[in-house]
Amino acid sequence: MRGRAAGIVPAVTEVAIVVHGGAGAWPAAAHQPARAGVRRAVEAGHALLAAGADALDAVQAAVVRLEDDPVFNAGRGAVRDESGGVTLDAALMRGPDRAAGAVAALAGIRNPILAARAVLDEARHVLLVGAPAADFARRAGIAAAPDGWFEVPGAGAPDTRGGTVGAVARDTRGGLAAATSTGGISGKRRGRVGDSALIGAGTWADDATAAISCTGDGEAVMRVALAHEIDALVRLAGLPLAEACEWALASLARLGTAGLIAVGADGIAMPYTTAAMPRAWRIGDGEIGVDV
Amino acid sequence: MRGRAAGIVPAVTEVAIVVHGGAGAWPAAAHQPARAGVRRAVEAGHALLAAGADALDAVQAAVVRLEDDPVFNAGRGAVRDESGGVTLDAALMRGPDRAAGAVAALAGIRNPILAARAVLDEARHVLLVGAPAADFARRAGIAAAPDGWFEVPGAGAPDTRGGTVGAVARDTRGGLAAATSTGGISGKRRGRVGDSALIGAGTWADDATAAISCTGDGEAVMRVALAHEIDALVRLAGLPLAEACEWALASLARLGTAGLIAVGADGIAMPYTTAAMPRAWRIGDGEIGVDV
Repeated sequence: MRGRAAGIVPAVTEVAIVVHGGAGAWPAAAHQPARAGVRRAVEAGHALLAAGADALDAVQAAVVRLEDDPVFNAGRGAVRDESGGVTLDAALMRGPDRAAGAVAALAGIRNPILAARAVLDEARHVLLVGAPAADFARRAGIAAAPDGWFEVPGAGAPDTRGGTVGAVARDTRGGLAAATSTGGISGKRRGRVGDSALIGAGTWADDATAAISCTGDGEAVMRVALAHEIDALVRLAGLPLAEACEWALASLARLGTAGLIAVGADGIAMPYTTAAMPRAWRIGDGEIGVDV
Repeated sequence: MRGRAAGIVPAVTEVAIVVHGGAGAWPAAAHQPARAGVRRAVEAGHALLAAGADALDAVQAAVVRLEDDPVFNAGRGAVRDESGGVTLDAALMRGPDRAAGAVAALAGIRNPILAARAVLDEARHVLLVGAPAADFARRAGIAAAPDGWFEVPGAGAPDTRGGTVGAVARDTRGGLAAATSTGGISGKRRGRVGDSALIGAGTWADDATAAISCTGDGEAVMRVALAHEIDALVRLAGLPLAEACEWALASLARLGTAGLIAVGADGIAMPYTTAAMPRAWRIGDGEIGVDV
């Protein structure tokens, strides 16, 4: 499907995908499973992109892999709130039309990103929370979590704040998308919602600028509208994407630490201000890159 | 407490407050009670500002009045969701440090803005949702709604989408604050959260730029991060506040209609793209202005 040789088919954009497994402390013992996890997620997303799929489907597929992997704080492996329960937040956004879907304080659903996708596809609301969000997901045919799905002894996030997962991608048509999923902060108040599910805070995508997925101190990310701030720095201040990401993270430093992944017309960026952030990426037909 | 005469006390900034009662259709029969309601809210907030109170306390006091007034779709008078229930969203943000608090999908609490304030004051999380948010509010001493409080025959929002309330203010120290409260969309899915409770979407305040409270098509407001977009247009594009507001509303027009109020260093703005938006304002010792 490379179009340049034929000359008469639409130009084919070089596809790209980046995934992250959460900015945090990430002790050495967790590095190997985290590296393997982000690699598998990139493989799943890239396979779809290479076959011509939309960026939205690619980031969703990547995040499903990360949600199912107990080493990350999303889906299986998610941390517990103060009451011992597991409640999950997820969002995705589509760059061509800025359509968005999100769920928060969701319990009992195996893959929250699929519930967020059902919200986006219905196109009625953007964010559903709590028990009604789970009811909506089940009626939309999204699988409930099997009994004991979230019981993963010894697994979970390696520190109390990292481990959120996310993916950003660019498809063959230049379309962008972003997806983020998390179990939030370990010991959080029940009902607490962080940045991941909030469009403009932890998740953003606009073909005119970039697709962004954030991780880290959620309350700090919300108070600087981190993902939308990067969009604004590219669009209004004319910064290259990598500089916009660095600048936005620096503006957050007074409030906390964070990390993010981004893809735009001029490349990818993966900065973080924590000790580590497992991440993997693949651009076009290049090799898969993986780092922690 | 006017400081210029003494010469050695800090300069006193001219206080300002603006409130809105929601962008929407607002049939003529509702204009008079809406005008009276926004006037009372400005009076309550301005009295605090004139006495030297923080902008945050002033916007909170103004929004409490609007929540208690059944002509507006917030607190008493809020619209019903598809199940016939009343669930409420509210947020506030403090400009000097961008501290923020919000609640969403809240039931049974008379004044959601007071619950949002308790979240801000605790400074642990930014957003709490659902039944745990109501539990948190009650434990913080916030009053539950008396039996039948939300039963207001014949009152409520004059159309299915307007009636959100909000306030923005500047205090004698130049500190800004914004507050927003709503019942959301009439007939919304249970669990739906709109822009009002989301920092950066419906509510934003930063002393470096402006305090903003939005109203209108919540899903559209979320998908353009309207309040933070205005902040970015002032800060990064150098637009005067009024132009930034007009520009941001124009960028939303493809997705829906909306209105907003804003206050910054260079004045106030109150644009809207709906048929009407009840609003009132007072700057310094000037007269109260009211319009629909």
